[in-house]
Amino acid sequence: MTGDLARFSINQMTVKQLSLPELADACGRLGIANVGLWREPVQSYGVEATAKLIRDAGLTVTTLCRGGFFTAIDPTERTAALADNRRAIDEAATLGTDTLVLVSGGLPAGSKDLHGARERIADALAELGPYAEQHGVRLAIEPLHPMYASDRCVVSTLAQALDLAERFPAHQVGVTVDTYHIWWDDNAPAQIARAGATGRIHTFQLADWTTPLPEGVLTGRGQIGDGAIDMREWQGHVEAAGYTGAIEVELFNDALWARDGREVLAETAARFVEHTA
Amino acid sequence: MTGDLARFSINQMTVKQLSLPELADACGRLGIANVGLWREPVQSYGVEATAKLIRDAGLTVTTLCRGGFFTAIDPTERTAALADNRRAIDEAATLGTDTLVLVSGGLPAGSKDLHGARERIADALAELGPYAEQHGVRLAIEPLHPMYASDRCVVSTLAQALDLAERFPAHQVGVTVDTYHIWWDDNAPAQIARAGATGRIHTFQLADWTTPLPEGVLTGRGQIGDGAIDMREWQGHVEAAGYTGAIEVELFNDALWARDGREVLAETAARFVEHTA
Repeated sequence: MTGDLARFSINQMTVKQLSLPELADACGRLGIANVGLWREPVQSYGVEATAKLIRDAGLTVTTLCRGGFFTAIDPTERTAALADNRRAIDEAATLGTDTLVLVSGGLPAGSKDLHGARERIADALAELGPYAEQHGVRLAIEPLHPMYASDRCVVSTLAQALDLAERFPAHQVGVTVDTYHIWWDDNAPAQIARAGATGRIHTFQLADWTTPLPEGVLTGRGQIGDGAIDMREWQGHVEAAGYTGAIEVELFNDALWARDGREVLAETAARFVEHTA
Repeated sequence: MTGDLARFSINQMTVKQLSLPELADACGRLGIANVGLWREPVQSYGVEATAKLIRDAGLTVTTLCRGGFFTAIDPTERTAALADNRRAIDEAATLGTDTLVLVSGGLPAGSKDLHGARERIADALAELGPYAEQHGVRLAIEPLHPMYASDRCVVSTLAQALDLAERFPAHQVGVTVDTYHIWWDDNAPAQIARAGATGRIHTFQLADWTTPLPEGVLTGRGQIGDGAIDMREWQGHVEAAGYTGAIEVELFNDALWARDGREVLAETAARFVEHTA
Protein backbone atom coordinates (compact mmCIF):
# COMPACT_ATOMS: atom_id res chain seq x y z
CA MET A 1 0.00 0.00 0.00
CA THR A 2 1.28 3.46 -0.83
CA GLY A 3 1.00 6.07 1.83
CA ASP A 4 -1.22 8.10 -0.45
CA LEU A 5 -3.85 5.36 -0.59
CA ALA A 6 -3.85 4.59 3.14
CA ARG A 7 -7.09 6.49 3.74
CA PHE A 8 -8.68 5.69 0.40
CA SER A 9 -11.79 3.55 0.44
CA ILE A 10 -13.51 2.37 -2.70
CA ASN A 11 -17.25 2.32 -2.47
CA GLN A 12 -18.52 -0.82 -4.15
CA MET A 13 -21.02 1.05 -6.32
CA THR A 14 -18.20 2.85 -8.10
CA VAL A 15 -17.20 -0.47 -9.69
CA LYS A 16 -20.44 -2.39 -9.39
CA GLN A 17 -19.48 -4.39 -12.48
CA LEU A 18 -16.97 -6.25 -10.27
CA SER A 19 -18.18 -9.18 -8.19
CA LEU A 20 -17.18 -9.15 -4.54
CA PRO A 21 -14.32 -11.64 -5.08
CA GLU A 22 -13.13 -9.61 -8.08
CA LEU A 23 -13.29 -6.43 -6.02
CA ALA A 24 -11.35 -8.00 -3.13
CA ASP A 25 -8.72 -9.32 -5.52
CA ALA A 26 -8.38 -6.02 -7.40
CA CYS A 27 -8.03 -4.11 -4.13
CA GLY A 28 -5.23 -6.45 -3.09
CA ARG A 29 -3.38 -5.92 -6.34
CA LEU A 30 -3.72 -2.11 -6.18
CA GLY A 31 -2.86 -1.75 -2.49
CA ILE A 32 -6.34 -0.60 -1.55
CA ALA A 33 -7.13 -1.39 2.07
CA ASN A 34 -10.70 -0.16 2.49
CA VAL A 35 -14.06 -0.76 0.89
CA GLY A 36 -17.57 0.61 1.36
CA LEU A 37 -20.22 -2.01 0.69
CA TRP A 38 -23.87 -2.02 -0.40
CA ARG A 39 -26.52 -4.24 1.07
CA GLU A 40 -27.94 -5.72 -2.14
CA PRO A 41 -24.72 -7.23 -3.57
CA VAL A 42 -23.67 -8.30 -0.06
CA GLN A 43 -26.99 -10.07 0.45
CA SER A 44 -26.66 -11.73 -2.95
CA TYR A 45 -23.20 -13.06 -2.08
CA GLY A 46 -24.24 -13.78 1.49
CA VAL A 47 -23.51 -11.57 4.48
CA GLU A 48 -21.36 -14.11 6.35
CA ALA A 49 -19.60 -15.12 3.15
CA THR A 50 -18.85 -11.48 2.36
CA ALA A 51 -17.53 -10.91 5.86
CA LYS A 52 -15.18 -13.88 5.48
CA LEU A 53 -14.08 -12.84 1.98
CA ILE A 54 -13.30 -9.31 3.10
CA ARG A 55 -11.57 -10.48 6.27
CA ASP A 56 -9.45 -13.01 4.41
CA ALA A 57 -8.45 -10.31 1.92
CA GLY A 58 -7.29 -8.09 4.78
CA LEU A 59 -9.75 -5.36 3.84
CA THR A 60 -11.55 -3.00 6.18
CA VAL A 61 -15.22 -2.22 5.58
CA THR A 62 -15.58 1.53 6.09
CA THR A 63 -19.35 1.80 5.64
CA LEU A 64 -22.41 -0.16 4.72
CA CYS A 65 -24.86 1.58 2.38
CA ARG A 66 -27.62 1.94 3.19
CA GLY A 67 -30.39 2.07 5.69
CA GLY A 68 -33.09 4.68 5.89
CA PHE A 69 -36.32 5.35 4.00
CA PHE A 70 -38.05 6.37 7.18
CA THR A 71 -40.71 8.73 5.86
CA ALA A 72 -43.67 6.46 5.21
CA ILE A 73 -46.89 7.43 6.97
CA ASP A 74 -48.57 4.04 6.62
CA PRO A 75 -47.99 2.06 9.88
CA THR A 76 -47.33 -1.21 8.06
CA GLU A 77 -44.73 0.43 5.84
CA ARG A 78 -43.14 2.11 8.86
CA THR A 79 -42.91 -1.17 10.75
CA ALA A 80 -41.36 -2.85 7.71
CA ALA A 81 -38.84 -0.03 7.31
CA LEU A 82 -37.77 -0.27 10.94
CA ALA A 83 -37.39 -4.05 10.69
CA ASP A 84 -35.34 -3.68 7.53
CA ASN A 85 -33.09 -1.13 9.23
CA ARG A 86 -32.51 -3.51 12.15
CA ARG A 87 -31.39 -6.09 9.59
CA ALA A 88 -29.09 -3.49 8.04
CA ILE A 89 -27.56 -2.85 11.46
CA ASP A 90 -27.09 -6.60 11.95
CA GLU A 91 -25.41 -6.83 8.56
CA ALA A 92 -23.10 -3.91 9.34
CA ALA A 93 -22.07 -5.60 12.57
CA THR A 94 -21.44 -8.90 10.78
CA LEU A 95 -19.31 -7.12 8.18
CA GLY A 96 -17.32 -5.46 10.93
CA THR A 97 -18.09 -1.87 9.95
CA ASP A 98 -19.10 0.68 12.55
CA THR A 99 -21.03 2.92 10.14
CA LEU A 100 -24.40 2.48 8.44
CA VAL A 101 -25.18 5.23 5.93
CA LEU A 102 -28.80 6.40 5.97
CA VAL A 103 -30.74 7.78 3.02
CA SER A 104 -33.73 9.04 4.89
CA GLY A 105 -36.51 8.85 2.29
CA GLY A 106 -38.57 11.28 0.25
CA LEU A 107 -42.13 12.53 0.51
CA PRO A 108 -44.83 9.87 0.60
CA ALA A 109 -47.03 9.87 -2.52
CA GLY A 110 -49.27 12.92 -2.53
CA SER A 111 -47.67 14.55 0.51
CA LYS A 112 -46.22 18.06 0.43
CA ASP A 113 -45.19 18.03 4.10
CA LEU A 114 -41.39 18.17 4.34
CA HIS A 115 -41.45 19.05 8.02
CA GLY A 116 -43.66 16.09 8.90
CA ALA A 117 -41.43 13.74 6.91
CA ARG A 118 -38.36 15.01 8.74
CA GLU A 119 -40.06 14.43 12.08
CA ARG A 120 -40.84 10.84 11.13
CA ILE A 121 -37.12 10.36 10.49
CA ALA A 122 -36.44 11.54 14.03
CA ASP A 123 -39.01 9.05 15.34
CA ALA A 124 -37.27 6.22 13.49
CA LEU A 125 -33.85 7.26 14.77
CA ALA A 126 -35.17 7.20 18.33
CA GLU A 127 -36.15 3.56 17.83
CA LEU A 128 -33.03 2.49 15.95
CA GLY A 129 -30.30 4.43 17.77
CA PRO A 130 -30.16 2.21 20.87
CA TYR A 131 -30.35 -0.95 18.72
CA ALA A 132 -27.44 0.30 16.61
CA GLU A 133 -25.43 1.13 19.74
CA GLN A 134 -25.93 -2.38 21.09
CA HIS A 135 -24.42 -3.69 17.86
CA GLY A 136 -21.50 -1.26 17.77
CA VAL A 137 -22.88 0.53 14.73
CA ARG A 138 -23.29 4.27 14.25
CA LEU A 139 -26.04 5.67 12.04
CA ALA A 140 -24.81 8.28 9.56
CA ILE A 141 -27.59 10.50 8.18
CA GLU A 142 -26.63 11.51 4.67
CA PRO A 143 -28.01 14.82 3.49
CA LEU A 144 -28.70 14.33 -0.19
CA HIS A 145 -28.53 17.10 -2.77
CA PRO A 146 -31.77 19.14 -2.79
CA MET A 147 -32.60 17.73 -6.22
CA TYR A 148 -33.52 14.50 -4.39
CA ALA A 149 -35.75 16.14 -1.79
CA SER A 150 -39.09 14.87 -3.05
CA ASP A 151 -38.33 11.33 -4.10
CA ARG A 152 -35.32 10.15 -2.13
CA CYS A 153 -34.29 12.20 0.86
CA VAL A 154 -36.04 15.12 2.56
CA VAL A 155 -32.80 15.84 4.44
CA SER A 156 -31.12 18.23 2.01
CA THR A 157 -28.40 20.01 3.98
CA LEU A 158 -25.82 19.20 6.62
CA ALA A 159 -27.60 21.66 8.89
CA GLN A 160 -30.83 19.67 8.60
CA ALA A 161 -28.96 16.40 9.14
CA LEU A 162 -27.30 17.76 12.27
CA ASP A 163 -30.57 19.17 13.58
CA LEU A 164 -31.79 15.57 13.49
CA ALA A 165 -28.59 13.88 14.65
CA GLU A 166 -28.08 16.15 17.64
CA ARG A 167 -31.27 14.89 19.26
CA PHE A 168 -29.33 11.67 19.89
CA PRO A 169 -25.93 10.68 21.30
CA ALA A 170 -23.09 11.06 18.78
CA HIS A 171 -22.13 7.39 19.11
CA GLN A 172 -25.63 6.53 17.92
CA VAL A 173 -26.32 9.12 15.23
CA GLY A 174 -24.02 11.29 13.13
CA VAL A 175 -23.77 12.38 9.52
CA THR A 176 -22.29 11.45 6.18
CA VAL A 177 -20.35 14.28 4.55
CA ASP A 178 -20.43 13.72 0.78
CA THR A 179 -18.96 16.39 -1.46
CA TYR A 180 -21.47 15.74 -4.25
CA HIS A 181 -24.41 16.69 -2.08
CA ILE A 182 -23.05 19.75 -0.28
CA TRP A 183 -20.47 21.42 -2.51
CA TRP A 184 -22.80 24.27 -3.52
CA ASP A 185 -23.66 25.16 0.10
CA ASP A 186 -21.69 28.06 1.55
CA ASN A 187 -23.05 27.09 4.96
CA ALA A 188 -21.60 23.58 4.76
CA PRO A 189 -18.08 24.37 6.05
CA ALA A 190 -19.57 25.79 9.26
CA GLN A 191 -21.79 22.73 9.56
CA ILE A 192 -18.80 20.42 9.12
CA ALA A 193 -17.15 22.23 12.01
CA ARG A 194 -20.35 21.81 14.02
CA ALA A 195 -20.43 18.10 13.20
CA GLY A 196 -16.80 17.64 14.10
CA ALA A 197 -17.16 19.45 17.42
CA THR A 198 -19.59 16.78 18.62
CA GLY A 199 -17.87 13.82 16.95
CA ARG A 200 -20.58 13.33 14.37
CA ILE A 201 -18.63 13.07 11.09
CA HIS A 202 -19.10 9.33 10.72
CA THR A 203 -17.92 9.10 7.13
CA PHE A 204 -16.54 11.33 4.40
CA GLN A 205 -17.32 10.53 0.77
CA LEU A 206 -16.17 12.04 -2.51
CA ALA A 207 -17.76 12.43 -5.92
CA ASP A 208 -17.36 15.23 -8.40
CA TRP A 209 -20.10 17.42 -9.88
CA THR A 210 -20.40 17.16 -13.65
CA THR A 211 -23.04 18.38 -16.07
CA PRO A 212 -25.29 17.87 -17.94
CA LEU A 213 -27.11 15.77 -15.38
CA PRO A 214 -28.65 12.58 -16.76
CA GLU A 215 -32.39 11.91 -16.77
CA GLY A 216 -33.43 11.01 -13.23
CA VAL A 217 -30.20 12.59 -11.91
CA LEU A 218 -29.04 9.39 -10.18
CA THR A 219 -26.11 8.30 -12.31
CA GLY A 220 -24.25 11.54 -12.90
CA ARG A 221 -21.73 11.43 -10.04
CA GLY A 222 -18.50 12.46 -11.72
CA GLN A 223 -15.04 10.92 -11.48
CA ILE A 224 -12.80 12.82 -9.06
CA GLY A 225 -11.19 15.71 -10.89
CA ASP A 226 -13.67 15.80 -13.77
CA GLY A 227 -15.99 18.41 -12.30
CA ALA A 228 -16.57 21.54 -10.28
CA ILE A 229 -15.59 20.40 -6.79
CA ASP A 230 -12.30 21.22 -5.09
CA MET A 231 -11.73 17.98 -3.17
CA ARG A 232 -8.77 19.27 -1.17
CA GLU A 233 -10.86 22.18 0.09
CA TRP A 234 -13.52 19.83 1.50
CA GLN A 235 -10.91 17.43 2.85
CA GLY A 236 -9.43 20.45 4.60
CA HIS A 237 -12.78 21.27 6.18
CA VAL A 238 -13.37 17.76 7.55
CA GLU A 239 -9.81 17.46 8.79
CA ALA A 240 -9.96 20.85 10.48
CA ALA A 241 -13.06 19.47 12.18
CA GLY A 242 -11.04 16.53 13.48
CA TYR A 243 -11.92 13.83 10.99
CA THR A 244 -9.12 11.32 10.51
CA GLY A 245 -11.05 8.38 9.05
CA ALA A 246 -11.25 6.84 5.61
CA ILE A 247 -12.18 8.85 2.54
CA GLU A 248 -14.58 6.91 0.39
CA VAL A 249 -15.05 7.49 -3.32
CA GLU A 250 -18.61 6.67 -4.31
CA LEU A 251 -19.54 7.19 -7.96
CA PHE A 252 -22.74 6.23 -9.75
CA ASN A 253 -21.86 6.81 -13.35
CA ASP A 254 -23.12 5.00 -16.42
CA ALA A 255 -19.96 5.74 -18.38
CA LEU A 256 -17.75 4.28 -15.63
CA TRP A 257 -20.00 1.25 -15.24
CA ALA A 258 -19.68 0.54 -18.96
CA ARG A 259 -15.89 0.19 -18.65
CA ASP A 260 -13.67 -2.54 -17.27
CA GLY A 261 -14.08 -2.46 -13.50
CA ARG A 262 -10.42 -3.06 -12.69
CA GLU A 263 -9.42 -0.21 -14.97
CA VAL A 264 -11.98 2.10 -13.32
CA LEU A 265 -10.72 1.07 -9.90
CA ALA A 266 -7.12 1.86 -10.83
CA GLU A 267 -8.16 5.19 -12.34
CA THR A 268 -10.22 6.10 -9.27
CA ALA A 269 -7.30 5.32 -6.95
CA ALA A 270 -5.01 7.45 -9.11
CA ARG A 271 -7.48 10.32 -9.12
CA PHE A 272 -7.77 10.06 -5.35
CA VAL A 273 -4.01 10.41 -4.99
CA GLU A 274 -3.98 13.33 -7.42
CA HIS A 275 -6.85 15.29 -5.89
CA THR A 276 -6.53 14.73 -2.14
CA ALA A 277 -3.89 15.98 0.24
CA MET B 1 -61.09 39.68 -15.04
CA THR B 2 -62.09 37.50 -12.13
CA GLY B 3 -60.93 38.55 -8.73
CA ASP B 4 -59.04 35.30 -8.38
CA LEU B 5 -56.88 36.08 -11.39
CA ALA B 6 -56.14 39.70 -10.43
CA ARG B 7 -52.64 38.91 -9.20
CA PHE B 8 -51.92 36.15 -11.70
CA SER B 9 -49.18 36.78 -14.22
CA ILE B 10 -48.35 34.36 -17.00
CA ASN B 11 -44.69 34.08 -17.73
CA GLN B 12 -44.24 33.92 -21.47
CA MET B 13 -42.03 30.83 -21.32
CA THR B 14 -44.92 28.79 -19.91
CA VAL B 15 -46.65 29.10 -23.28
CA LYS B 16 -43.71 29.83 -25.53
CA GLN B 17 -45.55 28.19 -28.43
CA LEU B 18 -47.76 31.32 -28.55
CA SER B 19 -46.52 34.35 -30.48
CA LEU B 20 -46.70 37.65 -28.65
CA PRO B 21 -49.92 38.72 -30.45
CA GLU B 22 -51.45 35.30 -29.72
CA LEU B 23 -50.43 35.61 -26.07
CA ALA B 24 -51.90 39.10 -25.77
CA ASP B 25 -55.12 37.97 -27.41
CA ALA B 26 -55.43 34.85 -25.26
CA CYS B 27 -54.81 36.85 -22.09
CA GLY B 28 -57.61 39.23 -23.08
CA ARG B 29 -60.04 36.37 -23.64
CA LEU B 30 -59.18 34.71 -20.32
CA GLY B 31 -59.16 37.87 -18.21
CA ILE B 32 -55.42 37.71 -17.54
CA ALA B 33 -53.98 41.15 -16.83
CA ASN B 34 -50.27 40.46 -16.33
CA VAL B 35 -47.45 38.90 -18.28
CA GLY B 36 -43.77 38.20 -17.62
CA LEU B 37 -41.71 38.48 -20.79
CA TRP B 38 -38.41 37.07 -22.05
CA ARG B 39 -35.83 39.05 -23.93
CA GLU B 40 -35.33 36.75 -26.92
CA PRO B 41 -38.95 36.62 -28.16
CA VAL B 42 -39.36 40.31 -27.35
CA GLN B 43 -36.27 41.17 -29.39
CA SER B 44 -37.53 39.02 -32.26
CA TYR B 45 -40.86 40.84 -32.29
CA GLY B 46 -39.18 44.18 -31.60
CA VAL B 47 -38.96 45.85 -28.20
CA GLU B 48 -40.97 48.94 -29.14
CA ALA B 49 -43.48 46.84 -31.04
CA THR B 50 -43.91 44.56 -28.04
CA ALA B 51 -44.35 47.52 -25.74
CA LYS B 52 -47.10 48.89 -27.99
CA LEU B 53 -48.79 45.49 -28.38
CA ILE B 54 -48.83 44.92 -24.62
CA ARG B 55 -49.98 48.47 -23.89
CA ASP B 56 -52.77 48.31 -26.45
CA ALA B 57 -53.92 45.00 -24.96
CA GLY B 58 -54.13 46.61 -21.53
CA LEU B 59 -51.61 44.17 -20.08
CA THR B 60 -49.04 44.89 -17.39
CA VAL B 61 -45.51 43.51 -17.76
CA THR B 62 -44.57 42.16 -14.34
CA THR B 63 -40.97 41.16 -15.10
CA LEU B 64 -38.47 40.86 -17.89
CA CYS B 65 -36.37 37.69 -17.90
CA ARG B 66 -33.48 37.84 -17.83
CA GLY B 67 -30.25 39.61 -17.24
CA GLY B 68 -27.24 38.23 -15.45
CA PHE B 69 -24.43 35.83 -16.38
CA PHE B 70 -21.95 37.91 -14.46
CA THR B 71 -19.35 35.30 -13.55
CA ALA B 72 -16.93 35.42 -16.47
CA ILE B 73 -13.30 36.09 -15.54
CA ASP B 74 -12.20 37.15 -19.03
CA PRO B 75 -12.32 40.98 -19.22
CA THR B 76 -13.80 41.02 -22.72
CA GLU B 77 -16.55 38.65 -21.69
CA ARG B 78 -17.23 40.71 -18.57
CA THR B 79 -17.47 43.92 -20.56
CA ALA B 80 -19.84 42.25 -23.03
CA ALA B 81 -22.00 40.92 -20.18
CA LEU B 82 -22.30 44.35 -18.58
CA ALA B 83 -23.21 45.93 -21.93
CA ASP B 84 -25.82 43.27 -22.52
CA ASN B 85 -27.30 43.86 -19.08
CA ARG B 86 -27.54 47.61 -19.76
CA ARG B 87 -29.51 46.71 -22.89
CA ALA B 88 -31.73 44.44 -20.79
CA ILE B 89 -32.39 47.35 -18.41
CA ASP B 90 -33.23 49.58 -21.37
CA GLU B 91 -35.62 46.94 -22.70
CA ALA B 92 -37.30 46.56 -19.32
CA ALA B 93 -37.82 50.32 -19.16
CA THR B 94 -39.25 50.37 -22.68
CA LEU B 95 -41.64 47.55 -21.81
CA GLY B 96 -42.75 49.44 -18.72
CA THR B 97 -41.76 46.81 -16.18
CA ASP B 98 -39.87 47.75 -13.04
CA THR B 99 -38.22 44.34 -12.56
CA LEU B 100 -35.39 42.62 -14.39
CA VAL B 101 -34.82 39.04 -13.24
CA LEU B 102 -31.15 38.04 -12.98
CA VAL B 103 -29.73 34.56 -13.48
CA SER B 104 -26.27 35.22 -12.20
CA GLY B 105 -24.16 32.68 -14.09
CA GLY B 106 -22.29 29.48 -13.29
CA LEU B 107 -18.63 28.66 -12.85
CA PRO B 108 -16.33 29.63 -15.73
CA ALA B 109 -14.88 26.62 -17.55
CA GLY B 110 -12.32 24.88 -15.36
CA SER B 111 -13.01 27.00 -12.28
CA LYS B 112 -13.95 25.49 -8.93
CA ASP B 113 -14.17 28.84 -7.14
CA LEU B 114 -17.77 29.48 -6.09
CA HIS B 115 -16.79 32.29 -3.73
CA GLY B 116 -14.87 34.14 -6.43
CA ALA B 117 -17.76 33.79 -8.87
CA ARG B 118 -20.17 35.20 -6.29
CA GLU B 119 -17.88 38.18 -5.72
CA ARG B 120 -17.81 38.92 -9.45
CA ILE B 121 -21.60 39.06 -9.34
CA ALA B 122 -21.35 41.71 -6.62
CA ASP B 123 -18.90 43.68 -8.78
CA ALA B 124 -21.36 43.60 -11.69
CA LEU B 125 -24.26 44.67 -9.48
CA ALA B 126 -22.23 47.64 -8.28
CA GLU B 127 -21.87 48.78 -11.87
CA LEU B 128 -25.43 48.04 -12.97
CA GLY B 129 -27.42 49.09 -9.90
CA PRO B 130 -27.18 52.86 -10.47
CA TYR B 131 -27.87 52.43 -14.20
CA ALA B 132 -30.98 50.40 -13.39
CA GLU B 133 -32.13 52.99 -10.87
CA GLN B 134 -31.82 55.77 -13.46
CA HIS B 135 -34.15 53.75 -15.70
CA GLY B 136 -36.67 52.92 -12.98
CA VAL B 137 -35.76 49.24 -13.03
CA ARG B 138 -35.00 47.00 -10.06
CA LEU B 139 -32.61 44.06 -10.38
CA ALA B 140 -34.00 40.82 -8.91
CA ILE B 141 -31.32 38.23 -8.17
CA GLU B 142 -32.87 34.80 -8.61
CA PRO B 143 -31.34 32.04 -6.52
CA LEU B 144 -31.54 28.96 -8.69
CA HIS B 145 -31.90 25.44 -7.35
CA PRO B 146 -28.50 24.04 -6.28
CA MET B 147 -28.62 21.59 -9.18
CA TYR B 148 -27.76 24.58 -11.41
CA ALA B 149 -24.83 25.81 -9.32
CA SER B 150 -22.03 24.85 -11.69
CA ASP B 151 -23.46 25.68 -15.09
CA ARG B 152 -26.09 28.34 -14.62
CA CYS B 153 -26.17 30.15 -11.30
CA VAL B 154 -23.74 30.05 -8.39
CA VAL B 155 -26.38 31.77 -6.25
CA SER B 156 -28.21 28.75 -4.85
CA THR B 157 -30.18 30.01 -1.85
CA LEU B 158 -32.21 33.03 -0.85
CA ALA B 159 -29.68 33.63 1.90
CA GLN B 160 -26.88 33.89 -0.66
CA ALA B 161 -29.00 36.13 -2.90
CA LEU B 162 -29.76 38.45 0.02
CA ASP B 163 -26.12 38.51 1.12
CA LEU B 164 -25.44 39.95 -2.34
CA ALA B 165 -28.50 42.19 -2.62
CA GLU B 166 -28.05 43.79 0.78
CA ARG B 167 -24.79 45.37 -0.31
CA PHE B 168 -26.95 47.70 -2.44
CA PRO B 169 -30.07 49.83 -1.96
CA ALA B 170 -33.31 47.82 -2.12
CA HIS B 171 -34.65 49.94 -4.97
CA GLN B 172 -31.63 48.85 -6.99
CA VAL B 173 -31.21 45.19 -6.04
CA GLY B 174 -33.59 42.65 -4.56
CA VAL B 175 -34.47 39.01 -5.12
CA THR B 176 -36.75 36.73 -7.07
CA VAL B 177 -38.60 34.24 -4.89
CA ASP B 178 -39.40 31.19 -7.03
CA THR B 179 -40.97 28.17 -5.36
CA TYR B 180 -39.22 25.70 -7.67
CA HIS B 181 -35.79 26.78 -6.52
CA ILE B 182 -36.32 27.11 -2.79
CA TRP B 183 -39.09 24.72 -1.74
CA TRP B 184 -36.66 22.20 -0.19
CA ASP B 185 -34.93 24.84 1.98
CA ASP B 186 -36.14 25.02 5.58
CA ASN B 187 -34.22 28.26 5.92
CA ALA B 188 -36.13 29.92 3.07
CA PRO B 189 -39.15 31.14 5.08
CA ALA B 190 -36.84 33.10 7.39
CA GLN B 191 -35.02 34.49 4.37
CA ILE B 192 -38.31 35.57 2.80
CA ALA B 193 -39.05 37.47 6.00
CA ARG B 194 -35.57 39.00 5.81
CA ALA B 195 -36.16 40.00 2.18
CA GLY B 196 -39.54 41.49 2.96
CA ALA B 197 -38.24 43.50 5.90
CA THR B 198 -35.99 45.48 3.58
CA GLY B 199 -38.39 45.62 0.63
CA ARG B 200 -36.40 43.24 -1.50
CA ILE B 201 -39.01 40.75 -2.74
CA HIS B 202 -39.13 42.10 -6.27
CA THR B 203 -41.08 39.23 -7.77
CA PHE B 204 -42.71 35.97 -6.70
CA GLN B 205 -42.84 33.08 -9.16
CA LEU B 206 -44.47 29.67 -9.02
CA ALA B 207 -43.60 26.30 -10.50
CA ASP B 208 -44.16 22.85 -9.04
CA TRP B 209 -41.54 20.20 -8.36
CA THR B 210 -42.11 16.98 -10.27
CA THR B 211 -39.91 13.93 -10.84
CA PRO B 212 -38.21 12.26 -12.57
CA LEU B 213 -36.16 15.23 -13.69
CA PRO B 214 -35.38 15.30 -17.41
CA GLU B 215 -31.86 15.11 -18.80
CA GLY B 216 -30.21 18.50 -18.28
CA VAL B 217 -32.85 19.32 -15.62
CA LEU B 218 -34.01 22.49 -17.43
CA THR B 219 -37.45 21.52 -18.68
CA GLY B 220 -38.95 19.76 -15.69
CA ARG B 221 -40.79 22.62 -14.01
CA GLY B 222 -44.13 21.10 -13.15
CA GLN B 223 -47.63 22.48 -13.65
CA ILE B 224 -49.04 24.01 -10.46
CA GLY B 225 -50.61 21.26 -8.38
CA ASP B 226 -48.82 18.38 -10.08
CA GLY B 227 -45.92 18.16 -7.66
CA ALA B 228 -44.50 18.37 -4.16
CA ILE B 229 -44.84 22.09 -3.43
CA ASP B 230 -47.56 23.62 -1.27
CA MET B 231 -48.13 26.89 -3.16
CA ARG B 232 -50.38 28.42 -0.51
CA GLU B 233 -47.72 27.90 2.11
CA TRP B 234 -45.15 29.87 0.11
CA GLN B 235 -47.69 32.51 -0.84
CA GLY B 236 -48.36 32.84 2.87
CA HIS B 237 -44.66 33.39 3.55
CA VAL B 238 -44.24 36.15 0.96
CA GLU B 239 -47.47 37.85 1.99
CA ALA B 240 -46.52 37.72 5.67
CA ALA B 241 -43.32 39.45 4.54
CA GLY B 242 -45.40 42.22 2.97
CA TYR B 243 -45.43 41.18 -0.67
CA THR B 244 -48.58 42.31 -2.47
CA GLY B 245 -47.40 42.15 -6.09
CA ALA B 246 -48.17 39.84 -8.97
CA ILE B 247 -47.66 36.08 -8.76
CA GLU B 248 -46.07 34.80 -11.90
CA VAL B 249 -46.33 31.23 -13.11
CA GLU B 250 -43.20 30.26 -15.01
CA LEU B 251 -43.02 26.72 -16.35
CA PHE B 252 -40.44 25.18 -18.64
CA ASN B 253 -41.97 21.88 -19.52
CA ASP B 254 -41.66 19.88 -22.71
CA ALA B 255 -45.04 18.23 -22.24
CA LEU B 256 -46.78 21.60 -21.84
CA TRP B 257 -44.92 23.07 -24.80
CA ALA B 258 -46.12 20.18 -26.99
CA ARG B 259 -49.76 21.11 -26.33
CA ASP B 260 -51.97 23.89 -27.65
CA GLY B 261 -50.74 27.09 -26.04
CA ARG B 262 -54.20 28.57 -25.39
CA GLU B 263 -55.29 25.37 -23.70
CA VAL B 264 -52.16 25.40 -21.51
CA LEU B 265 -52.77 29.04 -20.64
CA ALA B 266 -56.35 28.33 -19.60
CA GLU B 267 -55.22 25.31 -17.57
CA THR B 268 -52.48 27.30 -15.88
CA ALA B 269 -54.88 30.08 -14.93
CA ALA B 270 -57.30 27.50 -13.51
CA ARG B 271 -54.53 25.82 -11.52
CA PHE B 272 -53.48 29.21 -10.17
CA VAL B 273 -56.99 29.86 -8.91
CA GLU B 274 -57.16 26.37 -7.40
CA HIS B 275 -53.79 26.42 -5.64
CA THR B 276 -53.36 29.99 -4.43
CA ALA B 277 -55.25 31.84 -1.75
